[in-house]
Amino acid sequence: MTTKTFYCPTEIIDGPGVLNTLPQIAAEYGTKAMIVVDPFFLNSPLLERIRQLLCDYEICVFGKVTPNPRDNDINEGAAICRQFGADFIVAIGGGSALDSAKAINIVSTNGGECWDYVRVAGKEIRPITEKLLPLIAIPTTSGTGSECTRYSVVTNSVTHAKSTIKTDLNFPKKALVDPELTVSVPRKTTALTAIDAFAHCFESYIGPKANEFSEMFSLKGMELFIRSVRRVCQDGSDTEARNDLSMCSTLGGLAITHSATTLPHGIGQALSGVTDAPHGGSIAVCMPQVIEWTLPYGQPRFARVACMFDESLKALPEAEQAAALPKILKELFSEIIGEKLTMASYGLTEDKIEAVADMALSSYSGDVSRHPRVASRDDLIEIIRRCL
Amino acid sequence: MTTKTFYCPTEIIDGPGVLNTLPQIAAEYGTKAMIVVDPFFLNSPLLERIRQLLCDYEICVFGKVTPNPRDNDINEGAAICRQFGADFIVAIGGGSALDSAKAINIVSTNGGECWDYVRVAGKEIRPITEKLLPLIAIPTTSGTGSECTRYSVVTNSVTHAKSTIKTDLNFPKKALVDPELTVSVPRKTTALTAIDAFAHCFESYIGPKANEFSEMFSLKGMELFIRSVRRVCQDGSDTEARNDLSMCSTLGGLAITHSATTLPHGIGQALSGVTDAPHGGSIAVCMPQVIEWTLPYGQPRFARVACMFDESLKALPEAEQAAALPKILKELFSEIIGEKLTMASYGLTEDKIEAVADMALSSYSGDVSRHPRVASRDDLIEIIRRCL
Repeated sequence: MTTKTFYCPTEIIDGPGVLNTLPQIAAEYGTKAMIVVDPFFLNSPLLERIRQLLCDYEICVFGKVTPNPRDNDINEGAAICRQFGADFIVAIGGGSALDSAKAINIVSTNGGECWDYVRVAGKEIRPITEKLLPLIAIPTTSGTGSECTRYSVVTNSVTHAKSTIKTDLNFPKKALVDPELTVSVPRKTTALTAIDAFAHCFESYIGPKANEFSEMFSLKGMELFIRSVRRVCQDGSDTEARNDLSMCSTLGGLAITHSATTLPHGIGQALSGVTDAPHGGSIAVCMPQVIEWTLPYGQPRFARVACMFDESLKALPEAEQAAALPKILKELFSEIIGEKLTMASYGLTEDKIEAVADMALSSYSGDVSRHPRVASRDDLIEIIRRCL
Repeated sequence: MTTKTFYCPTEIIDGPGVLNTLPQIAAEYGTKAMIVVDPFFLNSPLLERIRQLLCDYEICVFGKVTPNPRDNDINEGAAICRQFGADFIVAIGGGSALDSAKAINIVSTNGGECWDYVRVAGKEIRPITEKLLPLIAIPTTSGTGSECTRYSVVTNSVTHAKSTIKTDLNFPKKALVDPELTVSVPRKTTALTAIDAFAHCFESYIGPKANEFSEMFSLKGMELFIRSVRRVCQDGSDTEARNDLSMCSTLGGLAITHSATTLPHGIGQALSGVTDAPHGGSIAVCMPQVIEWTLPYGQPRFARVACMFDESLKALPEAEQAAALPKILKELFSEIIGEKLTMASYGLTEDKIEAVADMALSSYSGDVSRHPRVASRDDLIEIIRRCL
């Protein structure tokens, strides 16, 4: 009976074709739109469509967005945004475009530099005192859930440190979650981003910060993932299944906003820091092993999730249900990705295992300490070795 | 695959003792607090406790709140609020105190009279252009869910018409949902308010506006009601069960904010208009009959809810599961209220049946038209007759 809070001021509009409501939404916010977009879309029909939807607005497009958004790009985007005199910001793309737009919004309105606002141990955080611009977030992948979180993850271009700007002001005003935009995402990216969305739902469910609000989001998100991820990976044009994954991604965002990620994200993000593993893949290659190692510490919840994947498990004792989960996930991940991935596939070698463990402990200590079983350095090394 | 939206900017803080966070929350908003409170609390230890929590603040208490808030009382409260120069409003009580505070907030900041802002067919609604005061909503019953809705229900003191101010600006800034405040609520009121909360979850679940967001709230809210309503009515000091009902009430508010109520609220509110039936009671006396009459039109959802009440039903065909629901609810309502209520217990007589039907059609046409089976005037008369 602990306190449970709920807060998400973002208005979420989710459904096929909702992108078409952009002009009405923008009309509330002024006449000058700064568009932050994945460079992939710079000469795309999607950007052309956005331009047409916003044909009555003055537009400035910023496409310097990298998979791990860098503080210097954000500073540059903020300067352009300020000089342009934007009335609002539209972010279009995956998590990196959305996170970049959030940070650009803060720096352009409150001055200073991006890294001033980042949470790093021992460093003061520059306060946000000036009003931010309205941000409309339009995700084009089903994964990050950034459209409804208070987080923006950025990387220091000098030190390569990766950290988070965490503020309630980061919540976008509106999230236009249009599954039609994800139809063209290739199979492997679809699978990896969907695994990220699932991980948000799952990790926040097994973590100690889970509350009755976050659990609702987690369970519903996992249900949608289970129902539709195979269908989407078999047929990317299955819009009903795409719709489910979009919703799963948004629910994952709501779940981590109220609870938080745990060890799979801790190890996964450290792996991405040491190698170039993509975010979803870095989680896919460690989650089954992390669960295996955690089993007795989170049995009832692992069991419940396992039964969501396979109803026939309900006849078994709880311990056996829980123990089935790592294999279920390992096989599913291989199937939907289309190949069996390991940390070695992402270039991790024996001699870099300690580096991954050390980065998990330094940069993602929250994920490590929030996990139902808290890993020591030796534990981490052992888990990572099993993932090679 | 229709569009589903989610919007609730209220920060909800739910748990035993959260009232104690009031001073920290108020500190964000200024130094002068207008307190809108049920008159029942005017000389209560609760109001004394609030005064102590806000001992650093200048306070103005307004207690002219009736079970059906009247527009002239709201106009009076708004004038006092404006004259006092409040920085923020604290609403403490049941739905009527919360709804009064919402309306006082609008009138005090935007001028005119309460009824100017009410939705009535053929009448223009006065626009809200000035910023409202931050509103902190503190419910003392588990029922209305008003702490997280955009609605404020008010009654015209001249015509006795009852209608709604519906605006996104009505969402409180914060909802402090402290189940400890409900411990002293007597058994019958506890049961009736809990039935209202259940009705919000249930009606929004069977209605056509239900979406994946509202369904989550509805299903979780009903789960909590089923788990705890008997316990609370047997032992009002069972704080764990009180906690569940508080959460159920809030989830009901979130559910109707995204979907809406249907025919039980339509008939129930009309009954309250014609007799003096309390809100929860007016719903309790008609919901089983409404479901009975609706059965073939909403079978899968009635069946699912019936199985939530009684797992053993899962072995039966869906039609039988659904058909079991009216009896389950009728028996449960009698048990928790402590007596068998009917419309006749609230003073309804044969000759007033038509008046209830007519009021449902005129004042609550939305509830009628949104129901899975749309009732004609004759249907309504027949349903109401069965409830006598």
